[in-house]
Parts: sequence; structure tokens; C-alpha cells
Amino acid sequence: MAKKLEKIITRNENFADWYTSIVNNAKLIQYTDIKGMMVFQPNAWAIWEAIKNQIDLEFKKHGVRNLAMPTLIPLSEFQKEKDHIEGFAPELFMVNQIGDKKLDNPYAIRPTSEILFCNYFKNIVNSYNDLPIKNNQWCSVMRAEKTTRPFLRNAEFHWQELHAIFASEHEADEFAKTILDVYTDFVQNYLCIPVIKGLKTPWERFAGAQKTYTIEAMMQDGQALQSATSHYLGQFFAKAYDIKFQGQDNQMHYVHQMSAGLSTRIIGALIMVHADDQGLILPPDIAFNQIAILSIFANKNPQLLTISEQIRNELSDYRLFEDHSDKGVGYKLAQQEIEGTPICILVGVKELANQQVVLVRRDTHEKINVNLIDLKSTIKKLLLDIKTNIYQKAKKQLDESIVFVNSIEELKQVIAQNKMAKAFFDGSKEDDEQIKLLTNASTRCIFDETQSGQCFYTNKKTNKLTLFARAY
Amino acid sequence: MAKKLEKIITRNENFADWYTSIVNNAKLIQYTDIKGMMVFQPNAWAIWEAIKNQIDLEFKKHGVRNLAMPTLIPLSEFQKEKDHIEGFAPELFMVNQIGDKKLDNPYAIRPTSEILFCNYFKNIVNSYNDLPIKNNQWCSVMRAEKTTRPFLRNAEFHWQELHAIFASEHEADEFAKTILDVYTDFVQNYLCIPVIKGLKTPWERFAGAQKTYTIEAMMQDGQALQSATSHYLGQFFAKAYDIKFQGQDNQMHYVHQMSAGLSTRIIGALIMVHADDQGLILPPDIAFNQIAILSIFANKNPQLLTISEQIRNELSDYRLFEDHSDKGVGYKLAQQEIEGTPICILVGVKELANQQVVLVRRDTHEKINVNLIDLKSTIKKLLLDIKTNIYQKAKKQLDESIVFVNSIEELKQVIAQNKMAKAFFDGSKEDDEQIKLLTNASTRCIFDETQSGQCFYTNKKTNKLTLFARAY
Repeated sequence: MAKKLEKIITRNENFADWYTSIVNNAKLIQYTDIKGMMVFQPNAWAIWEAIKNQIDLEFKKHGVRNLAMPTLIPLSEFQKEKDHIEGFAPELFMVNQIGDKKLDNPYAIRPTSEILFCNYFKNIVNSYNDLPIKNNQWCSVMRAEKTTRPFLRNAEFHWQELHAIFASEHEADEFAKTILDVYTDFVQNYLCIPVIKGLKTPWERFAGAQKTYTIEAMMQDGQALQSATSHYLGQFFAKAYDIKFQGQDNQMHYVHQMSAGLSTRIIGALIMVHADDQGLILPPDIAFNQIAILSIFANKNPQLLTISEQIRNELSDYRLFEDHSDKGVGYKLAQQEIEGTPICILVGVKELANQQVVLVRRDTHEKINVNLIDLKSTIKKLLLDIKTNIYQKAKKQLDESIVFVNSIEELKQVIAQNKMAKAFFDGSKEDDEQIKLLTNASTRCIFDETQSGQCFYTNKKTNKLTLFARAY
Repeated sequence: MAKKLEKIITRNENFADWYTSIVNNAKLIQYTDIKGMMVFQPNAWAIWEAIKNQIDLEFKKHGVRNLAMPTLIPLSEFQKEKDHIEGFAPELFMVNQIGDKKLDNPYAIRPTSEILFCNYFKNIVNSYNDLPIKNNQWCSVMRAEKTTRPFLRNAEFHWQELHAIFASEHEADEFAKTILDVYTDFVQNYLCIPVIKGLKTPWERFAGAQKTYTIEAMMQDGQALQSATSHYLGQFFAKAYDIKFQGQDNQMHYVHQMSAGLSTRIIGALIMVHADDQGLILPPDIAFNQIAILSIFANKNPQLLTISEQIRNELSDYRLFEDHSDKGVGYKLAQQEIEGTPICILVGVKELANQQVVLVRRDTHEKINVNLIDLKSTIKKLLLDIKTNIYQKAKKQLDESIVFVNSIEELKQVIAQNKMAKAFFDGSKEDDEQIKLLTNASTRCIFDETQSGQCFYTNKKTNKLTLFARAY
């Protein structure tokens, strides 16, 4: 038997509880008997499919071809790249048994698939003519987590992982940056989430990477969320897994490699950047229902169904939801508010007398009477307005929240105000950890800028302008 | 370092080796270090994605919504439905350990997801108003196999599994049949594979099902391949997992359930129904490259590139492949033959003098000179011709291969001729096993027909007209 809807807690009451109540009420996630293993319900999965379709299209423009790797990796294969196994060993789900037969050589469920791609690339590359090879897979991966939260930290999460090999360092590094640009454009233009692009500090890099590029978004509580990363892997995996090609010089060379991923975590960002105390606010491009047609007591006024059908036909290019039940219009609107539908069309007798319907914007709650004859053009304009508005709102918050700081005291104050800080920083991993103890904030990324100044912590001169924030 | 292409073995030499050499040469599958765990290479995955897109579209028309379940199931959950655990226990991949920590209650990697869907449905259904609920997921599942073969028997394979619950038996059973019709239409119209629809015998049913509907296709070696199945599950899972709803009578009732799946096995059928001794023959609708534009020594005749670009623009609605390298045209054509591209366009100086190009059909090897001005319309017609032709060819073989038999001797003869048999059969599981020992053939399905006759094995009167065949 299903539980009834809970009350949505407000952001001011408790941001974390608000998040959970949005996830539950918008029917995004159901828990299962295994910690951190969750059902991505149809509403959440439809968002992910919309994300997937758009990114996949962009990847294909860059010559990336999809494939599917196995889920399991022999544990022995992990031993070959030291940093990689150290990074992932404690989190691995291990398969030790098939039926009642114990395995001598256990398998790990992939926490990421570098090893699988390496062994694959090794088998298919011969010469420089075969390069570059750019592949991607949409799949789930598993990493045991002490604390789990829907989307933000699932023991099993879904993502795409793009892996590519090149003849030269330059090409591999450039492609890592190109894919970060694909992510940036997508997250900003389709998810309407403004981001900061930068480079991870060495100690925040992906296990085995030479460079990790990242985009960081800011949630409404001032915390940062790493939204996607792209890694230049150098030749370290190539050497560990022996991926060689014959160059134009007829000599054998190791390939240069990159990988990049964006995961279902981004749905957590989508919620925490846009949603309000009434529910989700979904960007029109990825909303599972873009428009809801809600009739007001169609049971007593059957002509409303005829008009609704006309509207449905006229708006057939959009993803539509309809509710012609005899529930009250307040109830129907509240449901759509919770699920974040960008526009509701109220079809009622009173307005129809004037050949009008009422549009309700999810982002501003504004109600607009519109003549039926103008409906299609108004909807088109309004969806664009909503998109611009929610992006601008988030952008304004982000811009106003990044404060330049010169001292640990200033950093502490800024973070206590639920903001983010930028500072010249040339410290070590240990310095970063110490700063986190003092301020709750840590390095998120190094800005892609050429200014230089004095490190606020070590006083050394540096060109590393660094973003500090609390982070999910 | 990659292996060189092998010679394609002919079907007459050895059908099984021919199959393997097609899989390797068309770059569909690479093996990994774990038995039965394979890489679905970009060519294979593009076929699967085309299959997926079309079926997904059809499912959505029937009100099915996608979601994603976890990969792991607590083993304890399996115990709740006796037939189900008996069917799957020996094949389960068991997770006993996370990092270096042993688990008290191990998990199984899903071999199918009935249990996960049951526990989910239980949590979200309240009353008859919530029904029906129709969900589907595209995922991989794992079942340990003694003998593994690419596509046909992978320890990990990809599929969709559709699960739905209803208030009445009638609705659930009807929907199981509706989905079998979706599969039938898709497999016949898009994959151009003719199929036989029927009901599985009780001992060939899915573990836990009340009825299993199936479509069976015939491979070129006369063996049957079960291409998709749809199951009416009754209330057995509902009772085991306690999925109840409040009916219009205000009483609590168990739901009626169905599930259905089509897997990457179908790619095996696609190969064994259509391919020839030169390579794959792909139906135009799901070919990863529908048309290949191959210029003949464009390096010496740069005007060929200009014409190729015109052709590319004109045919931009299709999935195109282009090769303008200085390799010989014979080599280029052979590559496209191996990969099954329906039409190659040869762009050469000689024909261009007459404003023509040469089209080469993959299915018939026919070469057709066509005026550039007629190219687009000719291509459109030709792709339709190819589709019809490969379906008709397979249909003819199927129709000519089903022989009605009256005795075990006749059955033996028919099977020895690489054909299939239909016979009235009212025997038991043990009879079926005995017949298999004698003839290599076993029951594939019971035809959906109302005739009756005498069982060829037990002599009892029966209305079960049954398909017998060797099977993959």
C-alpha cells in the first residue's frame, strides 16, 4: 500500500528536508531494501532520457559512437593501475560466487569503466589510421557510499562515460576541453543552470587522471555541486594496459587518452537550483510534461472536452499532460506545481465564453488570460520566457554569491552567509583540508583565468584563482 | 594490437563458424576476460539503439512509461516465489562483499526484475484508480551460462523488460497479447524477420508465469530462435509480494500482472536470417549505415568530392557513410558488404561524364546506373524494395520449411532436412524430452489455431497444433 503525499517542507525550515520532500512528492525516487539503491521512477527517468537524448546528439556531432561494456571487471585487472585501484577499492561491490559456486578470481561491479575501455582499445587499435577512437556508453555504475541521498549520492547511479584515445597529447587534452564545453552548453542552455568552469586541484582529480576539468553549479543553499567532469588521462592507463599504435614514423607509441562523464547527480542540481516551496520547476526543454491541459469540471460541461481536444491537436508538438477528472482545479494545479510543469492551461466555461483560456506559469505563478486564437504563439513565447527567466534568476544568485576573499576570516564569513568565495590559493592538499576544518569550504576548482596575486593562505605569489565553497 | 580480419567461412562449410566469422568481421562483438561477458561494439550497439527507439515509440503509444530499477536484489527476496527462485538460483551472480567487508545478506545481480517491480508496485498502488500501471526498463541482466555465444547466449545481455499490473485477469492477459503483437509487427516490419506466434508449453514457460506467449523465427539452418516473449503472470507474484489495491467494491484485491521482454538475442536472429557468405545484410530501417557514398580515386579526381557533397546534402535524411580514401573500390565495397550496408553509391569519373552514379544493392549484389537527377527517388524506392525482398525471401524459406508430420519417423526426417515440423501433440514434458533425444527437435510453441486431431506421440485427441524444431 502506497504512502500518502507528505507536506512539502520549506527551504527556510530545512533545506535538506525540503529536498527530500520534493523528491518524494514529485514521484522521482523510491527506496529499495538495499541502502543507496533506488528506483528512478518514471518522472525522474523521463528527465534523464531528455538529458540523454540531447547530449547524445551533441556527442554524435563530435564523432562519438556508443557501445556497451560488460558490468563486471576481474579484480585482477584493477591491480594494473595503482592510483585507480587505490581510489576505488573500498567502494567496490564484489561478485564472489555464481549460483553456489565460489569464484577463485572474483569480479568487481564497475565503479567506472576505464579498465574495460583500455582492454577494448588495446584489441582494436593497430595504427595511427585507426585514431582517434571516440566511444561512449550510457550505463549505471556502483560505488558503496557511507551516506546516500537521492541523485546526489546513490550507491548505484546512471551516467554516460565517454572514453577516447588519440595519437597526441594535444588532441586528447583538447577533446577533454571540447567535451567540457558540450556539458557547459547543455547544462546552461537546456537545464538553465549557470556554471563555473575550471580545473580541479591535483588532489581532487579523478583517480588516474592528469587533469580534471569540471563545471560547478551553485545550489540555492550556497553549496557547490560538481555537475560534470572531463579528464585528460595522459598515457598512464595506456602504459598500464598496453594500448599501443604504429605511428607514421613506423614506431610503436602509447596512445593519449581522455574520459568524461555526466551523471544522474545533475537531477539533484536541477532540483536544488530551480525548485521552490511548491515543488519542482522544470526547464521547458527537459520537462516530462511541458504543458498541462486542465479542464474545470468537464463532467458538468462536456463542451470543455471538445475545446481541450482542439488545444491538444494544436499543441501536438509539445509533451502534453491532460486532466479532465472531476477533481477541483486547485488540486489539479497543485499536482502540476509539485511536478514542475512549466505551463498549465485552464479550460473553463467562464473564459471560454470570451473564447479565452487561462495560462498559469510555473516559475512566476502568473495567470494570463489568452485568446484561443493566440494560444499557440503565446505558448511558444512563454516557454522561451520561462527558460530565460529561470536561468537569469539562477545566474543572478550565482554572480551575487561569489565574493573575492583575502583571508581565512573573510572566507569564513562569506561561507557563513551561504555564499561562495574566490581567492588566490597556492596551498597543498593538507592546507585545503585545514581550511575545510576552519570554514566548511574547500577548493572546488581553479578558474580558467590568467590573473595572479598572493595566496591568501600561504602568501606565495600564484596565478591560481580558486573557487572555495561548501559542496555536495 | 588488433587482430586482422579473418576470412568469412561459408554457411555450407560450417554454419556455426560462419556465424562467428560474421560477428567478428562485421565488428559487432569483442570478447573480454570474463566468460560470456562481451563488448557490444558500436556497430552492434547502433543496431540495438535503432531497435530500442522503434519499440520504445510503440510502447509509449500503449501508455508504457520507462523507469530504472536497481541492478541488485537481496537474495532473501528471491525466496518469496518458489518457482521463480528454482528457475534462476543456479545462474545467479552473487555479491557477497563490499570493499573488504563480507555481507551477511548477499545480493544477486538481477537475472530479470519481477521481484524489483513487485516491491515497487506494492509501494505505489493504492486503489483501482491507480491501475493499470505499465512500466518498462531498458537494461542488462545476468544469467550464468555453461556455453556462451555472441548475442545468442551472453552471460550478460541487454533487453527491455516491460512489467504491468491490472485490476482484472482479462486486462492483464490482453495486454500480454497486445505486447506480443507489438513485437510481431516490429520484428516482421522493421527487422524483416517472419515469425510464428504461439503459446509456450507449460514446461517451457517463464519461471512463475501462467502463460508465456512467444514469437519464433527460423534461421537459415532450419533452427528456431525464440525472438520475444510476453507472460501473463496471474496473481502469483502479487500474492508472494503482497501487491494489493482497493477495488470499486471497497475490498482489497491482489493485482493481475504481466511482463514481456525482447533482448539482444534478436541481433543473432537478424544475422542468421538475412546474412550471406559475404557478410551482414541489414534491413534498411535498422541499418547503422543505410547508404555508403564511395568515391573511386577521389585523390586523383577532386571533382568527385564536390559531387559526393551534393549527394550527401540531398540524402541527409538517411544515415550515411562515406569513404573517399585512396583505397580501391573493390576493397571499399567488400567492407560495406561485410557490414551489411543496404545500398552503396559508387561515384566515379566514367559515370559522372553521363551525369550518373552506380548503385550497388547489398541483398542482390545488383549494380544499377542511375541519373543523378533521379538519385533521391531511386534510393527511396530501392530501400523499400530491399526491405520487401529480404522479408519475402525469409518468408518463403519459413513457409516451405514447416512440414506437417504424423509420426516420430516423419518428424525425424523433416528435422534431418533442416526443416521444422508441425504436429498435433498432447504429450508431457517427459515426452517432449524423449522426442528431443530421438529427433533433436523439441516443442517451440502451440499454434494459435482451433483445429484438432490426434497426437502423433500419444494418439490422444487434441487441439494443440504444435511447432517442433531444433532451437537456439
